[in-house]
Amino acid sequence: MAKGKQQLSGAGLRGQTAGATALCTVGKAGTGLTYRGYDIRDLAEQVSFEEVAYLLLKGELPTAEALDAYRVRLAGLRDLPAALREVLERIPASAHPMDVMRTGCSFLGTLETERDFSQQEAVADRLLAIFPSIITYWYRFSHDGQRIDCTTQAESLGEHFLTCLHGKRPDPLHATVMNVSLILYAEHEFNASTFTARVCASTLSDMHSCITGAIGSLRGPLHGGANEAAMEMLERWETADQAERELLARLERKEKIMGFGHAIYREFDPRNSVIKDWAKRLADNVGDTTLYAVAERVEAVMQREKRLFANADFYHAPAYHFMGIPTKLFTPLFVMARTSGWAAHVMEQRDNNRIIRPSADYIGPELRPVPPVEARG
Amino acid sequence: MAKGKQQLSGAGLRGQTAGATALCTVGKAGTGLTYRGYDIRDLAEQVSFEEVAYLLLKGELPTAEALDAYRVRLAGLRDLPAALREVLERIPASAHPMDVMRTGCSFLGTLETERDFSQQEAVADRLLAIFPSIITYWYRFSHDGQRIDCTTQAESLGEHFLTCLHGKRPDPLHATVMNVSLILYAEHEFNASTFTARVCASTLSDMHSCITGAIGSLRGPLHGGANEAAMEMLERWETADQAERELLARLERKEKIMGFGHAIYREFDPRNSVIKDWAKRLADNVGDTTLYAVAERVEAVMQREKRLFANADFYHAPAYHFMGIPTKLFTPLFVMARTSGWAAHVMEQRDNNRIIRPSADYIGPELRPVPPVEARG
Ligand SMILES: CC(C)(COP(=O)(O)OP(=O)(O)OC[C@H]1O[C@@H](n2cnc3c(N)ncnc32)[C@H](O)[C@@H]1OP(=O)(O)O)[C@@H](O)C(=O)NCCC(=O)NCCS
Ligand SMILES: CC(C)(COP(=O)(O)OP(=O)(O)OC[C@H]1O[C@@H](n2cnc3c(N)ncnc32)[C@H](O)[C@@H]1OP(=O)(O)O)[C@@H](O)C(=O)NCCC(=O)NCCS
Repeated sequence: MAKGKQQLSGAGLRGQTAGATALCTVGKAGTGLTYRGYDIRDLAEQVSFEEVAYLLLKGELPTAEALDAYRVRLAGLRDLPAALREVLERIPASAHPMDVMRTGCSFLGTLETERDFSQQEAVADRLLAIFPSIITYWYRFSHDGQRIDCTTQAESLGEHFLTCLHGKRPDPLHATVMNVSLILYAEHEFNASTFTARVCASTLSDMHSCITGAIGSLRGPLHGGANEAAMEMLERWETADQAERELLARLERKEKIMGFGHAIYREFDPRNSVIKDWAKRLADNVGDTTLYAVAERVEAVMQREKRLFANADFYHAPAYHFMGIPTKLFTPLFVMARTSGWAAHVMEQRDNNRIIRPSADYIGPELRPVPPVEARG
Repeated sequence: MAKGKQQLSGAGLRGQTAGATALCTVGKAGTGLTYRGYDIRDLAEQVSFEEVAYLLLKGELPTAEALDAYRVRLAGLRDLPAALREVLERIPASAHPMDVMRTGCSFLGTLETERDFSQQEAVADRLLAIFPSIITYWYRFSHDGQRIDCTTQAESLGEHFLTCLHGKRPDPLHATVMNVSLILYAEHEFNASTFTARVCASTLSDMHSCITGAIGSLRGPLHGGANEAAMEMLERWETADQAERELLARLERKEKIMGFGHAIYREFDPRNSVIKDWAKRLADNVGDTTLYAVAERVEAVMQREKRLFANADFYHAPAYHFMGIPTKLFTPLFVMARTSGWAAHVMEQRDNNRIIRPSADYIGPELRPVPPVEARG
């Protein structure tokens, strides 16, 4: 009954317009990715993630004063309500960390429900501030048996995450890379998780529902899950030559290689060179002689064999690894960043809404009478 | 910056194909709604909800033997794990019941994670069976301080729900109407919540993520929330004449009237006449002389003034009310039914997948340099 995907009209809605946005361009202007008109390279070099979140959520980059106030505000929203801590303590260590993020967000919605849309910015700020606490509280409790205090004095979201995770202030290089990483992941137009958030928003549902749904979509290995899958692959290989051999075998078997390809970009992903440079610096910093070299070889082989380029997820894998972040927390980090973009899209959808309700091609049976139960089989 | 919705190309993706389905036709064959080729009227008259769920999830109506086995299987999946009960007990009585459903589903995913797609039918059955327990356990605990036992001997899902809610076996008429209602709500092609589930599935995410996301979308007042909103409106009016006067005033103010209109149907919603008949029977049964008459008048005025017809949600409101179901549990009932359709769509999406990733029209600022922080404002 199923047709091949090539035969389906509009499979994956690729290239079809599903609405308008003022937030982002992908593959159109600058080096290929802009947030409200600013090139991703400029942002990654010149500003902090908090400024990017402010830009996305409130429309323009903050003044020095507004930025200070915003940092203080976010820092004040980090703590977990007691009931949420109790819920996190009931999630087993074996759980998928994205299920922890999804549940934490959803449960918070039962305690701090968005009563009407006038609260949307407050809810967005709260989620942005609390996600690092949610994931690290669960992780440290379930893996180390420790109940951590989530009210750190860290200056930035990235530092807050690293401090909660490792129980100490991070290396300044790590804080810098986290900042860049969060900026790179903050926003990406109508990708699958953002589109999920917009479909949800189009029913006029609440912010927690929209973000919870987006987390569920980001969890998929074709989307946010790719950075973890890339890491698991890279870790298996001890030399670049071994990597090349085994990668060729995977390609032979027509396996998908995570961290490569993209639904929109055709030539390169502008985020890749940025995070690649930082991954190299981190490799030098820890004295790595394997992982980065393996990653570079994989990138070269994919280019040579399949003309496929590394996307944002690929060098994020070694970069996070060099900072001592457990692989299973890679996709939750993506959530912490993308919450800024998701929430901005929800607000934008609400601003000019029509319920998102496409049509389907019918490929099922013709109209038929219901057989009595004795006559079935 | 925002354009009016009329100017946006493809607003709401209305009429645009987003994929193929063998599950359902809306506004095409029979009386206007078919599940795998069977007309909704025939199904509502001749079969049980369990048969419909089986049809959607497994492809064909069950034989007598398969149906018996399926009923036994579902009945065995009703109980709540202890950790889930503890989580539900931490959700305040003031929470939105759809947030309870969303959180219950998400948390269950941390305990009973779908490890690979071979488990998809098992997870779908479990969710179908457990949702009535989740909502009634929370409701009875938070509202009455009672910890109920969710392992009833009820023969059907609808009876199980009513038994848990009221602590006694339901009136057979109520069990019959619940069965019809669950059938009517089971499936509806690419509506916003189902489409949410499919977008999530298209990243190859897990079943709990897909259903959690769908619940979040169904929560919106433009979608599943409409039955509750209709009830709240109808309850305000004590006579049909008062209803007419105040409805006209609402229309004058250009308010949206919940329970009317539809994204696809243009003339009528085939589910309406079915549930309307049952609402009438329930009204006679309880000796109602107000609510049903008010509803009929509202329907007539909407037709006369706006040419808008009642959709499936409208007469569901009085029908549920006559069965003693609290208004806040109306949309969760929709979840219990639609889980069958959602899960079937997730499986179908997985079967022939391409990541759902549309494009957007850009309406934001042109490329611009990042101003230093001192120069902003
Ligand atoms: C990102 C992605 C989902 C885009 O999907 P898409 O829009 O359907 O991709 P395209 O239309 O460009 O794919 C064309 C062909 O390239 C090949 N291809 C694409 N990405 C590939 C990859 N990572 N490895 C191997 N082959 C790949 C496939 O053979 C595909 O053909 P198919 O029809 O046989 O599947 C896809 O590239 C992918 O799955 N990448 C790996 C996961 C990943 O890194 N995701 C993170 C994205 S930021
Ligand atoms: C179902 C619904 C979301 C469909 O949305 P849609 O596809 O955008 O609707 P249409 O294109 O048919 O609407 C055309 C016009 O009819 C009018 N209209 C539609 N439904 C209306 C309602 N319930 N009350 C008043 N006016 C309504 C609107 O004025 C709309 O024009 P607009 O552009 O000014 O908004 C919409 O009818 C609605 O909001 N209904 C109320 C909520 C409800 O009952 N939902 C449950 C659906 S099963």
